[in-house]
Amino acid sequence: MRDLANRPDLCCINTATLGFRISVEAAIDGLAARGIGGVSPWRRDLEGRRAAEVARRAADAGVRIDGYCRSSYLTHADPARRRAAHAENLRALDDAAELGAACYVLVVGGLAPGERDLGAARARARDGVADLLDAARARGVALALEPLHPVTTAGRSCLNTLAEALDWCDELDADGGNRLGVIVDAYHVWWDAALAAQIARACRARRVLGFHVSDWIDPPPDPVRGRGMMGDGAIDLRGIRRELEQGGFEGAVEVEIMSDAWDRRPVGEVLDACVRRVATVC
Amino acid sequence: MRDLANRPDLCCINTATLGFRISVEAAIDGLAARGIGGVSPWRRDLEGRRAAEVARRAADAGVRIDGYCRSSYLTHADPARRRAAHAENLRALDDAAELGAACYVLVVGGLAPGERDLGAARARARDGVADLLDAARARGVALALEPLHPVTTAGRSCLNTLAEALDWCDELDADGGNRLGVIVDAYHVWWDAALAAQIARACRARRVLGFHVSDWIDPPPDPVRGRGMMGDGAIDLRGIRRELEQGGFEGAVEVEIMSDAWDRRPVGEVLDACVRRVATVC
Repeated sequence: MRDLANRPDLCCINTATLGFRISVEAAIDGLAARGIGGVSPWRRDLEGRRAAEVARRAADAGVRIDGYCRSSYLTHADPARRRAAHAENLRALDDAAELGAACYVLVVGGLAPGERDLGAARARARDGVADLLDAARARGVALALEPLHPVTTAGRSCLNTLAEALDWCDELDADGGNRLGVIVDAYHVWWDAALAAQIARACRARRVLGFHVSDWIDPPPDPVRGRGMMGDGAIDLRGIRRELEQGGFEGAVEVEIMSDAWDRRPVGEVLDACVRRVATVC
Repeated sequence: MRDLANRPDLCCINTATLGFRISVEAAIDGLAARGIGGVSPWRRDLEGRRAAEVARRAADAGVRIDGYCRSSYLTHADPARRRAAHAENLRALDDAAELGAACYVLVVGGLAPGERDLGAARARARDGVADLLDAARARGVALALEPLHPVTTAGRSCLNTLAEALDWCDELDADGGNRLGVIVDAYHVWWDAALAAQIARACRARRVLGFHVSDWIDPPPDPVRGRGMMGDGAIDLRGIRRELEQGGFEGAVEVEIMSDAWDRRPVGEVLDACVRRVATVC
Protein backbone atom coordinates (compact mmCIF):
# COMPACT_ATOMS: atom_id res chain seq x y z
CA MET A 1 0.00 0.00 0.00
CA ARG A 2 1.36 3.40 -0.94
CA ASP A 3 2.44 5.83 1.75
CA LEU A 4 0.58 9.07 1.06
CA ALA A 5 2.56 11.20 3.50
CA ASN A 6 4.21 14.04 1.57
CA ARG A 7 2.75 12.72 -1.67
CA PRO A 8 0.25 15.41 -2.72
CA ASP A 9 1.09 14.38 -6.27
CA LEU A 10 -1.04 11.27 -5.63
CA CYS A 11 -3.93 13.50 -4.70
CA CYS A 12 -6.48 14.92 -7.13
CA ILE A 13 -9.00 17.66 -6.48
CA ASN A 14 -12.41 17.46 -8.08
CA THR A 15 -13.48 21.05 -8.64
CA ALA A 16 -16.86 20.40 -6.97
CA THR A 17 -14.82 20.33 -3.76
CA LEU A 18 -14.13 24.04 -4.26
CA GLY A 19 -17.80 24.79 -4.88
CA PHE A 20 -17.08 26.26 -8.33
CA ARG A 21 -16.16 29.47 -6.56
CA ILE A 22 -12.96 30.04 -8.51
CA SER A 23 -12.02 29.57 -12.15
CA VAL A 24 -10.44 26.35 -13.31
CA GLU A 25 -7.26 28.33 -13.99
CA ALA A 26 -7.17 29.58 -10.41
CA ALA A 27 -7.88 26.07 -9.20
CA ILE A 28 -4.97 24.71 -11.24
CA ASP A 29 -2.68 27.36 -9.77
CA GLY A 30 -3.85 26.58 -6.23
CA LEU A 31 -3.22 22.88 -6.79
CA ALA A 32 0.18 23.43 -8.35
CA ALA A 33 1.22 25.66 -5.44
CA ARG A 34 0.56 22.74 -3.10
CA GLY A 35 2.07 20.06 -5.29
CA ILE A 36 -1.33 18.44 -5.81
CA GLY A 37 -0.99 16.17 -8.78
CA GLY A 38 -4.38 16.14 -10.44
CA VAL A 39 -7.58 18.00 -11.11
CA SER A 40 -10.97 16.77 -12.27
CA PRO A 41 -12.95 19.67 -13.71
CA TRP A 42 -16.65 19.79 -14.44
CA ARG A 43 -18.22 20.88 -17.70
CA ARG A 44 -19.24 24.17 -16.12
CA ASP A 45 -15.56 24.91 -15.50
CA LEU A 46 -14.99 24.96 -19.25
CA GLU A 47 -17.78 27.36 -20.16
CA GLY A 48 -16.39 30.14 -22.35
CA ARG A 49 -13.06 28.37 -22.67
CA ARG A 50 -11.29 26.13 -25.17
CA ALA A 51 -10.54 22.74 -23.68
CA ALA A 52 -7.13 22.65 -25.34
CA GLU A 53 -6.13 25.84 -23.54
CA VAL A 54 -7.19 24.47 -20.19
CA ALA A 55 -5.21 21.34 -20.99
CA ARG A 56 -2.12 23.41 -21.78
CA ARG A 57 -2.53 25.43 -18.62
CA ALA A 58 -2.71 22.26 -16.55
CA ALA A 59 0.25 20.70 -18.34
CA ASP A 60 2.34 23.82 -17.83
CA ALA A 61 1.50 23.72 -14.13
CA GLY A 62 2.35 20.02 -13.90
CA VAL A 63 -1.20 19.05 -13.03
CA ARG A 64 -2.82 15.93 -14.52
CA ILE A 65 -6.45 15.94 -15.62
CA ASP A 66 -7.67 12.79 -13.94
CA GLY A 67 -11.31 12.97 -14.98
CA TYR A 68 -13.97 15.10 -16.57
CA CYS A 69 -17.36 15.44 -14.86
CA ARG A 70 -20.00 14.52 -15.84
CA SER A 71 -22.55 13.14 -18.29
CA SER A 72 -25.95 14.58 -19.01
CA TYR A 73 -28.43 12.00 -17.75
CA LEU A 74 -29.00 8.99 -19.96
CA THR A 75 -32.41 8.01 -18.64
CA HIS A 76 -34.77 10.54 -20.17
CA ALA A 77 -37.93 8.81 -21.34
CA ASP A 78 -38.79 11.64 -23.73
CA PRO A 79 -37.00 10.97 -27.05
CA ALA A 80 -36.21 14.63 -27.73
CA ARG A 81 -34.65 15.12 -24.30
CA ARG A 82 -32.79 11.88 -24.75
CA ARG A 83 -31.36 13.01 -28.09
CA ALA A 84 -30.40 16.38 -26.63
CA ALA A 85 -28.58 14.73 -23.73
CA HIS A 86 -26.76 12.42 -26.13
CA ALA A 87 -25.62 15.40 -28.21
CA GLU A 88 -24.40 17.15 -25.05
CA ASN A 89 -22.45 14.06 -24.10
CA LEU A 90 -20.82 13.89 -27.53
CA ARG A 91 -19.69 17.51 -27.18
CA ALA A 92 -18.40 16.75 -23.69
CA LEU A 93 -16.46 13.78 -25.08
CA ASP A 94 -14.84 16.15 -27.57
CA ASP A 95 -13.77 18.33 -24.67
CA ALA A 96 -12.63 15.33 -22.62
CA ALA A 97 -10.40 14.29 -25.53
CA GLU A 98 -8.95 17.79 -25.91
CA LEU A 99 -8.39 17.99 -22.18
CA GLY A 100 -6.59 14.69 -22.25
CA ALA A 101 -8.81 13.69 -19.35
CA ALA A 102 -8.18 10.20 -18.04
CA CYS A 103 -11.92 9.47 -18.21
CA TYR A 104 -15.36 10.97 -18.75
CA VAL A 105 -17.54 10.30 -15.71
CA LEU A 106 -21.02 8.94 -16.32
CA VAL A 107 -23.78 9.63 -13.81
CA VAL A 108 -26.68 7.91 -15.48
CA GLY A 109 -29.80 9.60 -14.13
CA GLY A 110 -32.83 8.31 -12.28
CA LEU A 111 -36.49 7.72 -13.01
CA ALA A 112 -38.34 9.89 -15.50
CA PRO A 113 -40.91 12.24 -13.92
CA GLY A 114 -43.79 10.16 -12.57
CA GLU A 115 -42.13 6.91 -13.61
CA ARG A 116 -42.07 3.89 -11.31
CA ASP A 117 -40.45 1.36 -13.63
CA LEU A 118 -36.93 1.16 -12.33
CA GLY A 119 -36.08 -1.73 -14.65
CA ALA A 120 -37.03 0.39 -17.65
CA ALA A 121 -34.97 3.34 -16.39
CA ARG A 122 -31.98 1.05 -15.92
CA ALA A 123 -32.41 -0.34 -19.42
CA ARG A 124 -32.46 3.19 -20.85
CA ALA A 125 -29.33 4.04 -18.86
CA ARG A 126 -27.47 0.99 -20.09
CA ASP A 127 -28.58 1.67 -23.68
CA GLY A 128 -27.41 5.26 -23.26
CA VAL A 129 -23.98 4.03 -22.24
CA ALA A 130 -23.91 1.70 -25.23
CA ASP A 131 -24.76 4.64 -27.49
CA LEU A 132 -21.64 6.49 -26.30
CA LEU A 133 -19.13 3.68 -26.72
CA ASP A 134 -18.19 4.24 -30.35
CA ALA A 135 -17.80 8.00 -29.92
CA ALA A 136 -15.69 7.58 -26.82
CA ARG A 137 -13.45 4.98 -28.45
CA ALA A 138 -13.03 7.14 -31.54
CA ARG A 139 -11.88 10.00 -29.32
CA GLY A 140 -9.68 7.83 -27.14
CA VAL A 141 -11.67 8.65 -24.01
CA ALA A 142 -12.36 6.08 -21.30
CA LEU A 143 -15.93 6.06 -19.92
CA ALA A 144 -16.27 5.75 -16.16
CA LEU A 145 -19.57 4.52 -14.75
CA GLU A 146 -20.09 6.00 -11.32
CA PRO A 147 -22.63 4.12 -9.22
CA LEU A 148 -24.30 6.54 -6.81
CA HIS A 149 -25.70 5.88 -3.34
CA PRO A 150 -29.19 4.34 -3.29
CA VAL A 151 -30.50 7.55 -1.73
CA THR A 152 -30.20 8.96 -5.28
CA THR A 153 -31.97 6.17 -7.18
CA ALA A 154 -35.11 8.11 -8.02
CA GLY A 155 -33.62 11.47 -8.88
CA ARG A 156 -30.01 11.10 -9.98
CA SER A 157 -28.77 7.61 -10.60
CA CYS A 158 -30.53 4.30 -10.97
CA LEU A 159 -27.06 2.72 -11.07
CA ASN A 160 -26.36 2.13 -7.40
CA THR A 161 -23.82 -0.60 -6.85
CA LEU A 162 -20.40 -1.49 -8.10
CA ALA A 163 -21.73 -4.95 -8.92
CA GLU A 164 -24.29 -3.57 -11.32
CA ALA A 165 -21.80 -1.18 -12.90
CA LEU A 166 -19.39 -4.06 -13.46
CA ASP A 167 -22.18 -6.17 -14.93
CA TRP A 168 -22.75 -3.41 -17.46
CA CYS A 169 -19.04 -3.28 -18.21
CA ASP A 170 -19.03 -7.02 -18.85
CA GLU A 171 -22.08 -6.79 -21.08
CA LEU A 172 -21.02 -3.74 -23.08
CA ASP A 173 -17.26 -4.12 -23.12
CA ALA A 174 -16.42 -7.75 -22.60
CA ASP A 175 -12.86 -7.53 -23.87
CA GLY A 176 -12.08 -4.10 -22.44
CA GLY A 177 -11.55 -2.64 -25.88
CA ASN A 178 -14.05 0.12 -25.21
CA ARG A 179 -12.27 1.19 -22.01
CA LEU A 180 -15.52 1.16 -20.09
CA GLY A 181 -14.81 1.18 -16.37
CA VAL A 182 -15.98 2.40 -13.00
CA ILE A 183 -15.39 5.08 -10.43
CA VAL A 184 -15.22 3.82 -6.85
CA ASP A 185 -16.59 6.76 -4.86
CA ALA A 186 -16.36 5.87 -1.20
CA TYR A 187 -19.36 8.02 -0.23
CA HIS A 188 -21.57 6.12 -2.65
CA VAL A 189 -20.44 2.55 -2.05
CA TRP A 190 -19.01 2.34 1.47
CA TRP A 191 -22.18 0.75 2.90
CA ASP A 192 -22.15 -2.19 0.49
CA ALA A 193 -21.51 -5.58 2.07
CA ALA A 194 -20.28 -6.75 -1.32
CA LEU A 195 -17.79 -3.89 -1.64
CA ALA A 196 -14.56 -5.81 -1.07
CA ALA A 197 -15.56 -8.56 -3.47
CA GLN A 198 -16.62 -6.09 -6.13
CA ILE A 199 -13.47 -4.03 -5.77
CA ALA A 200 -11.45 -7.20 -6.27
CA ARG A 201 -13.56 -8.04 -9.31
CA ALA A 202 -13.10 -4.53 -10.72
CA CYS A 203 -9.36 -4.70 -10.20
CA ARG A 204 -9.04 -8.13 -11.81
CA ALA A 205 -10.80 -6.79 -14.89
CA ARG A 206 -8.78 -3.54 -14.81
CA ARG A 207 -11.96 -1.50 -14.66
CA VAL A 208 -11.10 0.99 -11.90
CA LEU A 209 -10.80 4.42 -13.50
CA GLY A 210 -11.00 6.47 -10.34
CA PHE A 211 -11.18 6.48 -6.55
CA HIS A 212 -13.14 9.34 -4.99
CA VAL A 213 -13.01 10.20 -1.32
CA SER A 214 -15.09 12.27 1.10
CA ASP A 215 -16.87 11.11 4.23
CA TRP A 216 -20.32 10.11 5.45
CA ILE A 217 -21.64 12.35 8.21
CA ASP A 218 -24.50 10.68 10.04
CA PRO A 219 -27.22 11.62 9.79
CA PRO A 220 -26.34 13.38 6.55
CA PRO A 221 -27.20 17.10 6.69
CA ASP A 222 -28.20 16.67 3.06
CA PRO A 223 -27.80 13.52 0.97
CA VAL A 224 -26.19 15.40 -1.92
CA ARG A 225 -24.59 18.52 -0.46
CA GLY A 226 -23.83 17.23 3.02
CA ARG A 227 -20.65 15.28 2.47
CA GLY A 228 -17.92 15.39 5.06
CA MET A 229 -14.17 15.95 4.89
CA MET A 230 -12.21 12.72 5.08
CA GLY A 231 -11.86 11.70 8.72
CA ASP A 232 -15.00 13.47 9.89
CA GLY A 233 -17.38 10.60 9.22
CA ALA A 234 -18.07 6.88 9.22
CA ILE A 235 -16.15 5.61 6.20
CA ASP A 236 -13.05 3.42 6.52
CA LEU A 237 -11.30 5.22 3.67
CA ARG A 238 -7.92 3.61 4.26
CA GLY A 239 -9.51 0.19 4.23
CA ILE A 240 -11.11 0.86 0.87
CA ARG A 241 -7.86 2.22 -0.56
CA ARG A 242 -6.05 -0.85 0.74
CA GLU A 243 -8.45 -3.11 -1.14
CA LEU A 244 -8.01 -1.09 -4.30
CA GLU A 245 -4.24 -1.06 -4.11
CA GLN A 246 -4.03 -4.75 -3.24
CA GLY A 247 -5.91 -5.23 -6.49
CA GLY A 248 -3.33 -3.18 -8.35
CA PHE A 249 -4.93 0.27 -8.45
CA GLU A 250 -2.28 2.94 -8.92
CA GLY A 251 -4.41 6.00 -9.65
CA ALA A 252 -4.96 9.17 -7.70
CA VAL A 253 -6.99 9.69 -4.53
CA GLU A 254 -9.54 12.18 -5.79
CA VAL A 255 -11.26 14.43 -3.28
CA GLU A 256 -14.87 15.13 -4.23
CA ILE A 257 -16.77 16.88 -1.46
CA MET A 258 -20.08 18.52 -2.23
CA SER A 259 -20.75 20.41 0.95
CA ASP A 260 -22.56 23.60 1.81
CA ALA A 261 -20.53 23.73 5.02
CA TRP A 262 -17.12 23.50 3.30
CA ASP A 263 -18.24 25.93 0.61
CA ARG A 264 -18.42 28.58 3.31
CA ARG A 265 -14.70 28.25 4.04
CA PRO A 266 -11.93 29.95 2.05
CA VAL A 267 -10.81 27.89 -0.94
CA GLY A 268 -7.21 27.81 0.26
CA GLU A 269 -8.27 26.43 3.60
CA VAL A 270 -10.30 23.71 1.87
CA LEU A 271 -7.33 22.73 -0.30
CA ASP A 272 -5.00 22.61 2.68
CA ALA A 273 -7.45 20.43 4.57
CA CYS A 274 -7.77 18.08 1.60
CA VAL A 275 -4.01 17.59 1.31
CA ARG A 276 -3.65 17.04 5.04
CA ARG A 277 -6.53 14.63 5.35
CA VAL A 278 -5.61 12.58 2.29
CA ALA A 279 -2.16 12.12 3.82
CA THR A 280 -3.36 11.27 7.32
CA VAL A 281 -6.75 9.62 6.90
CA CYS A 282 -7.01 8.04 3.45
CA MET B 1 -52.24 -12.01 -7.49
CA ARG B 2 -54.80 -11.14 -4.88
CA ASP B 3 -57.37 -8.44 -5.56
CA LEU B 4 -57.12 -6.01 -2.65
CA ALA B 5 -60.27 -4.05 -3.50
CA ASN B 6 -62.64 -4.26 -0.55
CA ARG B 7 -60.19 -6.46 1.33
CA PRO B 8 -59.08 -4.29 4.26
CA ASP B 9 -58.68 -7.57 6.12
CA LEU B 10 -55.52 -8.10 4.05
CA CYS B 11 -54.19 -4.78 5.30
CA CYS B 12 -52.21 -4.25 8.49
CA ILE B 13 -51.42 -0.97 10.18
CA ASN B 14 -48.08 -0.52 11.87
CA THR B 15 -48.71 1.85 14.75
CA ALA B 16 -45.79 4.06 13.69
CA THR B 17 -48.11 5.11 10.87
CA LEU B 18 -50.33 6.77 13.45
CA GLY B 19 -47.39 8.53 15.05
CA PHE B 20 -48.07 6.95 18.47
CA ARG B 21 -50.67 9.63 18.98
CA ILE B 22 -53.36 7.26 20.25
CA SER B 23 -53.31 4.23 22.53
CA VAL B 24 -52.97 0.75 21.08
CA GLU B 25 -56.53 0.08 22.27
CA ALA B 26 -57.84 3.08 20.36
CA ALA B 27 -55.81 2.00 17.34
CA ILE B 28 -57.32 -1.49 17.49
CA ASP B 29 -60.81 0.03 17.66
CA GLY B 30 -60.08 2.30 14.72
CA LEU B 31 -58.81 -0.61 12.68
CA ALA B 32 -61.73 -2.84 13.59
CA ALA B 33 -64.20 -0.10 12.62
CA ARG B 34 -62.70 -0.14 9.12
CA GLY B 35 -62.34 -3.88 8.80
CA ILE B 36 -58.57 -3.63 8.79
CA GLY B 37 -57.26 -7.09 9.53
CA GLY B 38 -54.01 -6.56 11.38
CA VAL B 39 -51.97 -4.35 13.63
CA SER B 40 -48.26 -4.27 14.33
CA PRO B 41 -47.63 -2.46 17.61
CA TRP B 42 -44.34 -1.14 18.91
CA ARG B 43 -42.90 -1.79 22.32
CA ARG B 44 -43.81 1.72 23.42
CA ASP B 45 -47.46 0.86 22.76
CA LEU B 46 -47.29 -1.74 25.51
CA GLU B 47 -45.82 0.46 28.21
CA GLY B 48 -47.93 0.16 31.37
CA ARG B 49 -49.94 -2.70 29.90
CA ARG B 50 -49.98 -6.46 30.04
CA ALA B 51 -49.33 -7.99 26.64
CA ALA B 52 -51.94 -10.67 27.24
CA GLU B 53 -54.61 -8.03 27.71
CA VAL B 54 -53.67 -6.26 24.50
CA ALA B 55 -53.79 -9.63 22.77
CA ARG B 56 -57.28 -10.27 24.13
CA ARG B 57 -58.44 -6.82 23.08
CA ALA B 58 -57.19 -7.42 19.54
CA ALA B 59 -58.71 -10.89 19.37
CA ASP B 60 -62.06 -9.59 20.60
CA ALA B 61 -61.95 -6.93 17.88
CA GLY B 62 -61.02 -9.47 15.22
CA VAL B 63 -57.63 -7.88 14.59
CA ARG B 64 -54.51 -9.99 14.03
CA ILE B 65 -51.18 -9.01 15.52
CA ASP B 66 -48.96 -9.33 12.47
CA GLY B 67 -45.72 -8.18 14.04
CA TYR B 68 -44.09 -6.63 17.06
CA CYS B 69 -41.63 -3.76 16.61
CA ARG B 70 -38.74 -3.74 17.21
CA SER B 71 -35.44 -4.95 18.67
CA SER B 72 -33.03 -2.95 20.74
CA TYR B 73 -29.92 -2.59 18.60
CA LEU B 74 -27.62 -5.58 18.46
CA THR B 75 -24.45 -3.78 17.47
CA HIS B 76 -23.28 -2.08 20.66
CA ALA B 77 -19.55 -2.44 21.02
CA ASP B 78 -19.68 -1.80 24.77
CA PRO B 79 -20.31 -5.15 26.52
CA ALA B 80 -22.57 -3.67 29.20
CA ARG B 81 -24.77 -1.92 26.66
CA ARG B 82 -24.81 -5.07 24.60
CA ARG B 83 -25.97 -7.16 27.56
CA ALA B 84 -28.62 -4.58 28.43
CA ALA B 85 -29.96 -4.61 24.88
CA HIS B 86 -30.03 -8.41 24.89
CA ALA B 87 -32.03 -8.40 28.14
CA GLU B 88 -34.48 -5.89 26.63
CA ASN B 89 -34.90 -8.10 23.62
CA LEU B 90 -35.60 -11.14 25.80
CA ARG B 91 -38.34 -9.20 27.61
CA ALA B 92 -39.74 -8.06 24.29
CA LEU B 93 -39.79 -11.68 23.10
CA ASP B 94 -41.84 -12.54 26.18
CA ASP B 95 -44.31 -9.85 25.17
CA ALA B 96 -44.28 -10.94 21.54
CA ALA B 97 -45.20 -14.45 22.67
CA GLU B 98 -48.01 -13.21 24.91
CA LEU B 99 -49.27 -10.97 22.12
CA GLY B 100 -49.29 -13.91 19.76
CA ALA B 101 -47.41 -11.67 17.33
CA ALA B 102 -46.58 -13.30 14.02
CA CYS B 103 -42.98 -12.12 14.37
CA TYR B 104 -40.58 -9.93 16.33
CA VAL B 105 -38.94 -7.41 14.04
CA LEU B 106 -35.17 -7.03 14.25
CA VAL B 107 -33.56 -3.73 13.30
CA VAL B 108 -29.95 -4.51 13.99
CA GLY B 109 -28.26 -1.16 14.61
CA GLY B 110 -25.37 0.62 12.93
CA LEU B 111 -21.79 1.49 13.79
CA ALA B 112 -20.74 2.12 17.36
CA PRO B 113 -19.88 5.77 18.13
CA GLY B 114 -16.66 6.65 16.32
CA GLU B 115 -16.41 3.22 14.75
CA ARG B 116 -15.49 2.78 11.09
CA ASP B 117 -15.29 -1.00 10.95
CA LEU B 118 -18.49 -1.95 9.19
CA GLY B 119 -17.48 -5.59 8.98
CA ALA B 120 -17.09 -5.73 12.75
CA ALA B 121 -20.46 -4.07 13.28
CA ARG B 122 -22.08 -6.57 10.95
CA ALA B 123 -20.43 -9.44 12.78
CA ARG B 124 -21.77 -8.14 16.10
CA ALA B 125 -25.23 -7.81 14.57
CA ARG B 126 -25.20 -11.35 13.25
CA ASP B 127 -23.91 -12.66 16.56
CA GLY B 128 -26.66 -10.73 18.30
CA VAL B 129 -29.27 -12.43 16.13
CA ALA B 130 -27.69 -15.80 16.92
CA ASP B 131 -27.92 -15.00 20.63
CA LEU B 132 -31.69 -14.56 20.34
CA LEU B 133 -32.50 -17.74 18.43
CA ASP B 134 -32.92 -20.11 21.35
CA ALA B 135 -35.07 -17.70 23.33
CA ALA B 136 -37.27 -16.98 20.33
CA ARG B 137 -37.72 -20.65 19.53
CA ALA B 138 -38.51 -21.45 23.16
CA ARG B 139 -41.25 -18.82 23.08
CA GLY B 140 -42.55 -19.82 19.66
CA VAL B 141 -41.76 -16.41 18.19
CA ALA B 142 -40.46 -15.96 14.64
CA LEU B 143 -37.61 -13.46 14.23
CA ALA B 144 -37.84 -11.11 11.26
CA LEU B 145 -34.67 -9.45 10.02
CA GLU B 146 -35.52 -6.12 8.45
CA PRO B 147 -32.82 -4.78 6.13
CA LEU B 148 -32.93 -0.98 6.13
CA HIS B 149 -32.04 1.45 3.36
CA PRO B 150 -28.30 2.16 2.98
CA VAL B 151 -28.96 5.73 4.07
CA THR B 152 -29.22 4.22 7.59
CA THR B 153 -26.04 2.12 7.58
CA ALA B 154 -24.07 4.24 10.02
CA GLY B 155 -26.78 5.10 12.50
CA ARG B 156 -29.53 2.50 12.46
CA SER B 157 -28.87 -0.63 10.49
CA CYS B 158 -25.74 -2.10 9.00
CA LEU B 159 -28.00 -4.76 7.45
CA ASN B 160 -29.00 -3.14 4.18
CA THR B 161 -30.03 -5.66 1.59
CA LEU B 162 -32.35 -8.60 1.34
CA ALA B 163 -29.44 -10.64 0.01
CA GLU B 164 -27.44 -10.12 3.15
CA ALA B 165 -30.42 -10.79 5.42
CA LEU B 166 -31.07 -14.05 3.57
CA ASP B 167 -27.41 -15.00 3.85
CA TRP B 168 -27.73 -14.61 7.62
CA CYS B 169 -30.88 -16.72 7.60
CA ASP B 170 -29.05 -19.45 5.72
CA GLU B 171 -26.11 -19.31 8.09
CA LEU B 172 -28.06 -19.17 11.33
CA ASP B 173 -31.15 -21.17 10.46
CA ALA B 174 -30.30 -23.50 7.61
CA ASP B 175 -33.27 -25.81 8.07
CA GLY B 176 -35.80 -23.13 9.01
CA GLY B 177 -36.31 -24.64 12.44
CA ASN B 178 -35.54 -21.35 14.13
CA ARG B 179 -38.15 -19.50 12.06
CA LEU B 180 -35.66 -16.78 11.18
CA GLY B 181 -36.94 -14.78 8.25
CA VAL B 182 -37.11 -11.33 6.69
CA ILE B 183 -39.33 -8.30 6.34
CA VAL B 184 -39.54 -6.90 2.82
CA ASP B 185 -40.07 -3.19 3.42
CA ALA B 186 -40.53 -1.54 0.06
CA TYR B 187 -39.09 1.79 1.23
CA HIS B 188 -35.87 0.11 2.24
CA VAL B 189 -35.30 -2.25 -0.66
CA TRP B 190 -37.08 -0.83 -3.71
CA TRP B 191 -33.85 0.57 -5.23
CA ASP B 192 -32.05 -2.79 -5.26
CA ALA B 193 -31.32 -4.19 -8.72
CA ALA B 194 -31.25 -7.64 -7.13
CA LEU B 195 -34.68 -7.22 -5.53
CA ALA B 196 -36.69 -9.55 -7.75
CA ALA B 197 -34.11 -12.30 -7.50
CA GLN B 198 -33.85 -11.96 -3.74
CA ILE B 199 -37.62 -11.92 -3.27
CA ALA B 200 -37.81 -15.14 -5.28
CA ARG B 201 -35.04 -16.60 -3.12
CA ALA B 202 -36.80 -15.51 0.07
CA CYS B 203 -40.07 -17.04 -1.09
CA ARG B 204 -38.47 -20.34 -2.11
CA ALA B 205 -36.99 -20.63 1.38
CA ARG B 206 -40.28 -19.49 2.99
CA ARG B 207 -38.49 -16.65 4.75
CA VAL B 208 -40.89 -13.77 4.09
CA LEU B 209 -42.44 -12.79 7.41
CA GLY B 210 -43.82 -9.42 6.38
CA PHE B 211 -44.34 -6.95 3.56
CA HIS B 212 -44.25 -3.28 4.53
CA VAL B 213 -45.42 -0.49 2.28
CA SER B 214 -45.01 3.29 2.15
CA ASP B 215 -43.50 5.38 -0.63
CA TRP B 216 -40.27 7.13 -1.56
CA ILE B 217 -40.66 10.87 -1.98
CA ASP B 218 -37.73 12.33 -3.90
CA PRO B 219 -35.76 14.02 -2.62
CA PRO B 220 -36.76 12.64 0.77
CA PRO B 221 -37.77 15.44 3.18
CA ASP B 222 -36.06 13.33 5.83
CA PRO B 223 -34.57 9.88 5.34
CA VAL B 224 -36.31 8.48 8.41
CA ARG B 225 -39.40 10.61 8.99
CA GLY B 226 -40.09 11.66 5.42
CA ARG B 227 -41.84 8.61 4.02
CA GLY B 228 -44.72 9.05 1.66
CA MET B 229 -48.20 7.55 1.44
CA MET B 230 -48.45 4.74 -1.09
CA GLY B 231 -48.93 6.26 -4.54
CA ASP B 232 -47.24 9.55 -3.73
CA GLY B 233 -43.72 8.45 -4.60
CA ALA B 234 -41.40 6.47 -6.83
CA ILE B 235 -41.93 2.87 -5.73
CA ASP B 236 -43.67 0.28 -7.89
CA LEU B 237 -45.49 -1.22 -4.93
CA ARG B 238 -47.79 -3.40 -6.99
CA GLY B 239 -44.81 -4.81 -8.85
CA ILE B 240 -43.14 -5.79 -5.60
CA ARG B 241 -46.34 -7.34 -4.26
CA ARG B 242 -46.71 -9.28 -7.51
CA GLU B 243 -43.24 -10.75 -7.09
CA LEU B 244 -43.97 -11.69 -3.50
CA GLU B 245 -47.29 -13.31 -4.31
CA GLN B 246 -45.93 -15.14 -7.34
CA GLY B 247 -43.50 -16.63 -4.85
CA GLY B 248 -46.34 -17.72 -2.60
CA PHE B 249 -46.53 -14.90 -0.07
CA GLU B 250 -49.99 -14.77 1.51
CA GLY B 251 -49.42 -12.34 4.36
CA ALA B 252 -50.77 -8.88 4.99
CA VAL B 253 -49.83 -5.64 3.30
CA GLU B 254 -48.53 -3.68 6.28
CA VAL B 255 -48.54 0.09 6.13
CA GLU B 256 -45.56 1.60 7.93
CA ILE B 257 -45.24 5.31 7.30
CA MET B 258 -42.98 7.38 9.51
CA SER B 259 -43.85 10.89 8.43
CA ASP B 260 -43.92 14.23 10.12
CA ALA B 261 -46.33 15.42 7.43
CA TRP B 262 -48.85 12.61 7.96
CA ASP B 263 -48.53 12.92 11.71
CA ARG B 264 -50.10 16.36 11.40
CA ARG B 265 -53.31 14.87 9.96
CA PRO B 266 -56.11 13.39 12.05
CA VAL B 267 -55.62 9.70 12.80
CA GLY B 268 -58.92 8.75 11.20
CA GLU B 269 -57.96 10.49 7.99
CA VAL B 270 -54.63 8.65 7.93
CA LEU B 271 -56.34 5.30 8.43
CA ASP B 272 -58.88 6.01 5.68
CA ALA B 273 -56.05 7.00 3.31
CA CYS B 274 -54.14 3.81 4.13
CA VAL B 275 -57.11 1.59 3.37
CA ARG B 276 -57.87 3.40 0.13
CA ARG B 277 -54.29 3.46 -1.09
CA VAL B 278 -53.60 -0.16 -0.24
CA ALA B 279 -56.64 -1.09 -2.31
CA THR B 280 -55.85 1.15 -5.27
CA VAL B 281 -52.06 1.44 -5.39
CA CYS B 282 -50.46 -1.59 -3.75
